[in-house]
Amino acid sequence: MMKIIKHPDRNIWKSFLQRPLQDNSTLDIRVKQILDNVKNKGDDALRKYNLEFDKYISQELIVYNSEIQKAKNLVNKELKKSIIVAKENIESFHISQEETRKVVETTGGVLCWREDRGIEKVGLYIPGGTAPLFSSVLMLAIPAKIAGCKEIIMCTPPGSDGKINPAILYAASICGVSKIFKAGGAQAIAAMAYGTESIPAVYKIFGPGNQYVTRAKELVQLDGVAIDMPAGPSEVLVIADETARPEFVAADLLSQAEHGSDSQVVLLTDSEKLINDTLIAIEAQLKKLPRKNIAVNSLKNSFAVLLDNLNSCIEISNIYAPEHLILAVSAYKSLTRNIKSAGSVFLGNYSCESAGDYASGTNHTLPTNGYAKSYSGVSLDSFIKKISFQEISDEGLKNIGNYIEIMAEAEDLAAHKNAVSIRLKSIYENEI
Amino acid sequence: MMKIIKHPDRNIWKSFLQRPLQDNSTLDIRVKQILDNVKNKGDDALRKYNLEFDKYISQELIVYNSEIQKAKNLVNKELKKSIIVAKENIESFHISQEETRKVVETTGGVLCWREDRGIEKVGLYIPGGTAPLFSSVLMLAIPAKIAGCKEIIMCTPPGSDGKINPAILYAASICGVSKIFKAGGAQAIAAMAYGTESIPAVYKIFGPGNQYVTRAKELVQLDGVAIDMPAGPSEVLVIADETARPEFVAADLLSQAEHGSDSQVVLLTDSEKLINDTLIAIEAQLKKLPRKNIAVNSLKNSFAVLLDNLNSCIEISNIYAPEHLILAVSAYKSLTRNIKSAGSVFLGNYSCESAGDYASGTNHTLPTNGYAKSYSGVSLDSFIKKISFQEISDEGLKNIGNYIEIMAEAEDLAAHKNAVSIRLKSIYENEI
Repeated sequence: MMKIIKHPDRNIWKSFLQRPLQDNSTLDIRVKQILDNVKNKGDDALRKYNLEFDKYISQELIVYNSEIQKAKNLVNKELKKSIIVAKENIESFHISQEETRKVVETTGGVLCWREDRGIEKVGLYIPGGTAPLFSSVLMLAIPAKIAGCKEIIMCTPPGSDGKINPAILYAASICGVSKIFKAGGAQAIAAMAYGTESIPAVYKIFGPGNQYVTRAKELVQLDGVAIDMPAGPSEVLVIADETARPEFVAADLLSQAEHGSDSQVVLLTDSEKLINDTLIAIEAQLKKLPRKNIAVNSLKNSFAVLLDNLNSCIEISNIYAPEHLILAVSAYKSLTRNIKSAGSVFLGNYSCESAGDYASGTNHTLPTNGYAKSYSGVSLDSFIKKISFQEISDEGLKNIGNYIEIMAEAEDLAAHKNAVSIRLKSIYENEI
Repeated sequence: MMKIIKHPDRNIWKSFLQRPLQDNSTLDIRVKQILDNVKNKGDDALRKYNLEFDKYISQELIVYNSEIQKAKNLVNKELKKSIIVAKENIESFHISQEETRKVVETTGGVLCWREDRGIEKVGLYIPGGTAPLFSSVLMLAIPAKIAGCKEIIMCTPPGSDGKINPAILYAASICGVSKIFKAGGAQAIAAMAYGTESIPAVYKIFGPGNQYVTRAKELVQLDGVAIDMPAGPSEVLVIADETARPEFVAADLLSQAEHGSDSQVVLLTDSEKLINDTLIAIEAQLKKLPRKNIAVNSLKNSFAVLLDNLNSCIEISNIYAPEHLILAVSAYKSLTRNIKSAGSVFLGNYSCESAGDYASGTNHTLPTNGYAKSYSGVSLDSFIKKISFQEISDEGLKNIGNYIEIMAEAEDLAAHKNAVSIRLKSIYENEI
């Protein structure tokens, strides 16, 4: 069960917030082998790994349209309806992230603005394994489509029967994924980074995965391929006061704890009673969970902290920089402005984390492992580039040209200066 | 001099656009040694490298306030005025990038929005060497300050006399840099990534540099430190038609070519006369350049291509994805929408690249080496994180709760489902 820490001294905060450190040296060697192998042997390597890891003898790696059509009929009506509702909410939130062009005249005759362009080729990774994460398809393919990405490919590992979960195929088909491939793990990341006979190389790779997948994404960055963000185990931090409902808090902690044995859940509160009641509720709810063992293991990495007041809770949360932050406190409106680092924040008693995981509209691809200190979650921005433009008239160059000449000269860049001088000369000559 | 390619067949476009490939294996070994050394030995390692690389026997690494005050008096009035004009333009463009909060009600009772937070600790790297790039201080520190970053530290290598160019110190002081340190190269990146006795660790590192610096930035990413973007040699691509002024085009190509021997400049045009006239103008202008040798070397990596029409020019530019793109064509307004990948675009005869390098207001920290396919240049966005929020009422959860339950169940995540069910149950019970 969770560790309980009462009124810890401020100078030990950082130590108990420390996430378990990973030694990546062995992992790196193994992942680099896989990357090199796919780079050199292409599809053959992918087929070998499909057999080795997913026990699947693959011929073609691409998923045929007929398979996708068949899958659509295998998804029941209720689930289809739910996926469509989620899609609409995710769409409306991500469309709201589109920026209108703002042209700024920084100086008379000097116009500057930015324009958005979708990244032309993106690759989405969707894990197989214990849970068929069709929700991640929605979270990645929907903003990619809104951004105007032209080629949206997806890799996901097949089962030993060579099949992919129908809900994953259904979600991909309604969200505009161009091509789907049966490949998983670090090898799928390698394929999307370097390209193989079947799988085209892309410019940016997105999506969750195990430690092999996430490390492969980090390593292909060294070859110039962009990724959504680095990643670690999933986590939630709940700040609750005496008005919180212990059974809701327990349910939220458990919904994170069931993700994986390495997940971490944290409870911060100013109410000792809430800790006690929440622990009782956890015990009760745990019994009914199919993924009980996973949840029990991840609770062992987890802790509840009793603090003097809610401000201290927020301070600790900012140091931890949680992926998910739930504010189950009555005064959440006055606290949000103090949040400095978090992936996604859930306000009040009815904003459970699973709402954001599926259907509120926010993206569930979020920075874990403290990366919320420097990274945002996936959004429309993740799929676009902003190109800056400047349009300078002769008038504009007259206004700023001399300053540029002076600065270029001070930086010992005479040709930079000359590019202005030669134009100013021509402008002034024409005026005579 | 530049290579000239006339009417190349479409199927060879990619081959001549290929940038020189770098083999990083030797570089990686050397850079990793430096990173490890600083990680383990801190300031001592930095002092050793200051002596080895910059011939400077350093005691303290921090730049004292008295040095900064002294530097202010060493910068002449004209340069100060120019820096302030540039600062104002850069500020007004980057302030325009602030987004107002947009609250979206994705479903009745389900509110979603994003809020910006400055990254609390950022590190700026400013190279020393052949040119004292105070303009890079402006381009990085100004948006950092607007973003609300609290700790903005800067590292820059000292000369052998231990001094830093006064214009760099002046720019840093007026832009709100908190602390400045005398350290350069990969070792400065290591210091900002891991922290030393003098230099605090930061969450994100920005700034240009030589191949050691840029590789060090890429490698510290593997330890979870964010960076602005990967980098390669600087480059410009000019698209010109017969209305372009050859001497302007020549000046722009040279202003890029003088950056470094590994810079690349590309001219695309539908006018053979323009190529010829531009080459003549380059010859004439080259003679007067103090950095002539550098420019001559970089012209050797460079090429001019004669094409059938401007659409082909744009197509090639999109494949190349240039850092700087100059459209010296009369119909630029109708062409901009076809630009898919570029860092910063300069429109018309008077928008020279050096305007954007210093004072138009756009940022000059841009994706090189084709990274414009997936990366944007530095902007206000680079210094902030966007945190997503959701506030769901009981009404809201009633509207989407059942869909979440169905999806969570389909993903085999029973605790996710339960976090909704337990709330819905409570809501409906209260209604009775």
